[in-house]
Amino acid sequence: MNHKINKESLELHKKFKGKIQLASKVPIRNVMDFAYWYSPGVAEPCNLIHKNPQTVYDFTNKENTIAIISDGSRVLGLGNIGPEAALPVMEGKSLIFKYLGGVDAVPICLKTKSSEHFIDVVQSLEPNFGGINLEDIAQPGCFSILDKLRNSMNIPVWHDDQQGTALVVLAGVINSLRLVNKKPKNVKVVLQGVGSANVNIARMLIFYGIQSENIILIDSHGIITKTNRVSSQNEYKQKWELSQITNGDQISGNIIEAYKGADLVIALSAPKPGLIKKDYIKAMNSKPIVFACANPLPEIWPDDAKEAGAFIVGTGRSDFPNQVNNSLGFPGLFRGVLDVRASRITDNMCIKVAHAIADYALNDLDSNHILPSMSEFELFEKEALVAAKTAIEEGLNRINLSEEALYKKIHKNLEESRMFFELYNKKLNQEMNKS
Amino acid sequence: MNHKINKESLELHKKFKGKIQLASKVPIRNVMDFAYWYSPGVAEPCNLIHKNPQTVYDFTNKENTIAIISDGSRVLGLGNIGPEAALPVMEGKSLIFKYLGGVDAVPICLKTKSSEHFIDVVQSLEPNFGGINLEDIAQPGCFSILDKLRNSMNIPVWHDDQQGTALVVLAGVINSLRLVNKKPKNVKVVLQGVGSANVNIARMLIFYGIQSENIILIDSHGIITKTNRVSSQNEYKQKWELSQITNGDQISGNIIEAYKGADLVIALSAPKPGLIKKDYIKAMNSKPIVFACANPLPEIWPDDAKEAGAFIVGTGRSDFPNQVNNSLGFPGLFRGVLDVRASRITDNMCIKVAHAIADYALNDLDSNHILPSMSEFELFEKEALVAAKTAIEEGLNRINLSEEALYKKIHKNLEESRMFFELYNKKLNQEMNKS
Repeated sequence: MNHKINKESLELHKKFKGKIQLASKVPIRNVMDFAYWYSPGVAEPCNLIHKNPQTVYDFTNKENTIAIISDGSRVLGLGNIGPEAALPVMEGKSLIFKYLGGVDAVPICLKTKSSEHFIDVVQSLEPNFGGINLEDIAQPGCFSILDKLRNSMNIPVWHDDQQGTALVVLAGVINSLRLVNKKPKNVKVVLQGVGSANVNIARMLIFYGIQSENIILIDSHGIITKTNRVSSQNEYKQKWELSQITNGDQISGNIIEAYKGADLVIALSAPKPGLIKKDYIKAMNSKPIVFACANPLPEIWPDDAKEAGAFIVGTGRSDFPNQVNNSLGFPGLFRGVLDVRASRITDNMCIKVAHAIADYALNDLDSNHILPSMSEFELFEKEALVAAKTAIEEGLNRINLSEEALYKKIHKNLEESRMFFELYNKKLNQEMNKS
Repeated sequence: MNHKINKESLELHKKFKGKIQLASKVPIRNVMDFAYWYSPGVAEPCNLIHKNPQTVYDFTNKENTIAIISDGSRVLGLGNIGPEAALPVMEGKSLIFKYLGGVDAVPICLKTKSSEHFIDVVQSLEPNFGGINLEDIAQPGCFSILDKLRNSMNIPVWHDDQQGTALVVLAGVINSLRLVNKKPKNVKVVLQGVGSANVNIARMLIFYGIQSENIILIDSHGIITKTNRVSSQNEYKQKWELSQITNGDQISGNIIEAYKGADLVIALSAPKPGLIKKDYIKAMNSKPIVFACANPLPEIWPDDAKEAGAFIVGTGRSDFPNQVNNSLGFPGLFRGVLDVRASRITDNMCIKVAHAIADYALNDLDSNHILPSMSEFELFEKEALVAAKTAIEEGLNRINLSEEALYKKIHKNLEESRMFFELYNKKLNQEMNKS
C-alpha cells in the first residue's frame, strides 16, 4: 500500500509543482485598488507602525503568519538530506497548518553553517512573523537552537519534533492511564530512545505528575544510570540532566530489567520492529501501555505487542489504531497562541492543550480510541481556546479579549480558512481529474 | 484626494489585517489526502531531490516563489522606518506580483545589523526561492548588497529600486525618442539625482546606445565633473565611476548649464516641485523630454513643465499622463525568468523587456501615452516571453523549452493566477461590503 501511495504522491507532486501558493486576503476590483493596497495609501499604515511597532499586528498579516524553519538536517526518517530536499515536507506542513488551524505558515529551508548561524538568521526574521515553528533539525543542535531562540525572541518559538510530539504523546498517556485506572504519581515509565522527542516527553511527563525517579531512559547503548553516560563527551546537556534525576533505583543491565514492572513504555527510537521484544512487554505490570512511535516502522508491530499482552498500543501510523500524530496538536495550539498575539509557548500551555485533546476523545474512549482523529475539526477550536486562555492567564498575551470575543475570533479564523479551501478545492479537483 | 485615499487605506488595512495569505495549490478532499501531500508519501520527492537537488524545481513551488526582502531602511518617501513598518509595502508588492505576474512573492522584512549581515541572511534563504526581489534598501548599502548577492547566488537577484525603475524609465525613453525622432547616440541627457535609480538608469542608457559623454549628472551639490566629487569620502564607487565617464565637455557651474541643449532630463531626486525650474526646460533643445519621477511630488509639476515648452512629461503618479510605474516591469520580467528557472537577470534582459514595453504602447503612442497601463494584462505575457527567451539565448536557463511550450507555460501561469483572483474576489467583495 505504501508503495502505491509513494508512486502516486510523486506523480502528484510533479503535476502540481508544489503544494502552496500565495493568495490575496483582500478584494481587488481593478488596478486602481492598488492605490489603497500599495502606493500612495500604504504609507499611512507604515507611518503608524513606525510610530508604534506593535500596530504591525493590526495592519499586516503578522498576526496570522508563522515560519516553518528547517535546515533539513534530520527530515522524517530520511536523515540529513539538506534544505532543498526538506522543502516538500515543509510545504506539506504548511498545508496542514492552514487546513486544520487556518494559520499562514511560510516554509523557510535554510542553508546554514552552524547552530549559531541558524539562530542568527532566525532572529533576523522576527519582524515578519507571529511565531516560529522549527522542524526536522538534528540533535543536539536542536536543543540549543530552541533554547536560545525562545529566550531571545519576542514571538513564540516551537520545535514540533520536541514539544509537538510530546504534547500529543502526553494526550495519549492521559487517556491511557484513565483507561487502566492508574494515577500518574504511581506509574513506572520506560522511555526508549533519548532523542529530541523523548527528552521533551520526559520533561512534560514530570510536569504532568509522573515521578522522575519512576522514569527509566534507554538509549542505543542500553539503560541509563546516573554514572554510566557522564563520561562521554557526546552526551548533550538535556540528556545528562535527565540521567541525574531518573531511574531512582539505578537499575542497570539488560534492557528487560527496565521493563520489569513498568506500566508504560514510550519508544521514539529507530524504525526497527523487534527493537521492543515480546518478552519486554511480558515483563511489564498489568495492562501494559505501549507507544511504539518510530516512523515509518514501529519498534514493535501492534499485533505482536497485543499478543505479548499489551492493553493499549499506539504508533505513528494512520493504518493502526491510536495514531500519535503531531497534526492533532500544533494547528490548534498555534491558532490560539496567534489569536492573542502571545510572546511564548510554555510547557503549561502544552499540558493544558494535551488535556483538551484527551478530553475531546472521552466520548469514544476505549483501548483502540485513545486519541481523536485529524478530521474532527472541532478539536482544533477547543485547543485554540485553551491555548489562548492559558496565554492570557500567564500574562503572555499582547491583546486582551473576553472569552466570548476570543471564541468568536478563533471560530471566524478557522471558518474563513475552511471556506477558502472549499472554494479552491472545486477548481483544483477539476484540475486533478484532467488528464 | 490623497487624504481620502489615505484614510480609506488605513481603514481597509485594519479591517483585513494584512493583504496576503497562504493557500493550497493542490486539492484536499479530506485528511486522508495528507498521506500524499505529507507523510508517508512526501518522502518520495524528498529522496529524489536529495539525489538531485535541481529537481527541487519539479516537486516544490520553488519555481514560482520569490522573496521580497527589505530591511526597511528606505521605504517609499518615508525613509528609514524599520522592518516592521515596511511590511505593509512588501505585502502590497506581493499582491502586485501575484495579480500581474502570477508570482508567489513572500514578504521578508529583516532585522539586520549591517550590509554584510543582510547579505549573509539572504544567502542562507536560497534553497526556498526561485528569485530574490530586494526592496527599499538605503544607499550606498543597496549597491554592495545587490552586487554581492548577484555574484554569490544561483538564483536571480533584483533590486527593484535600481533595475526595476531603470527598466521602466528606459521604456519611456525609447518611446519618447521615437516621438521626437531623435537617435540615442545623438541625444544629450541630464540625470538629476544620483541615487540607486539614476545610477542604474545611467548604466542602462549607455547600454541602450546613449553616449556616456553626453550624460550629465547632477546631485544635491550641483553638476558633477571628473574632479569635483572625487575628494569626498562619501561618494560610493558606482557614483564615482560614472563621474569619470560622463559630462564629456566637463560642464560645471550653475545647474542650468547642464540643461542647455539637453534633449532629455530624468529626475529621481527629491519630492520638491520647483527643483526643476521652468528656465531649465526653456534652455533645453527642441521638443524637451522631462521625466520628473520623485514620489509623491514630482520635481516640477507637469503643467509648469509643459508651459516651459516640454514636449513630453512623465511622473511617478497615476493622476498624470505617462506614469513611470515599476509595476509595468517586474511582474512580467519575473514571470519569464522563473518560467525558465533562470540563474540571473542581466542588463540585456532588462533592455529587451524595456523594448517590449515600449513596443506594446506603439498603437496608441502620443506624447501623453508613451507607456502602457497596468491594466493591459497582455503586456506582462509579452514581457515574460521576451525575458525567458533572452535568458535562454544567454544560456542562463535551467530548462529548455520551445517557444511554443514557453508561451503555453507563461500563458497558463498567468491565466491560473487570474482565475484564483476572480474566485477569491467574489468572496472578498462580499466581506468588504459587510458593515
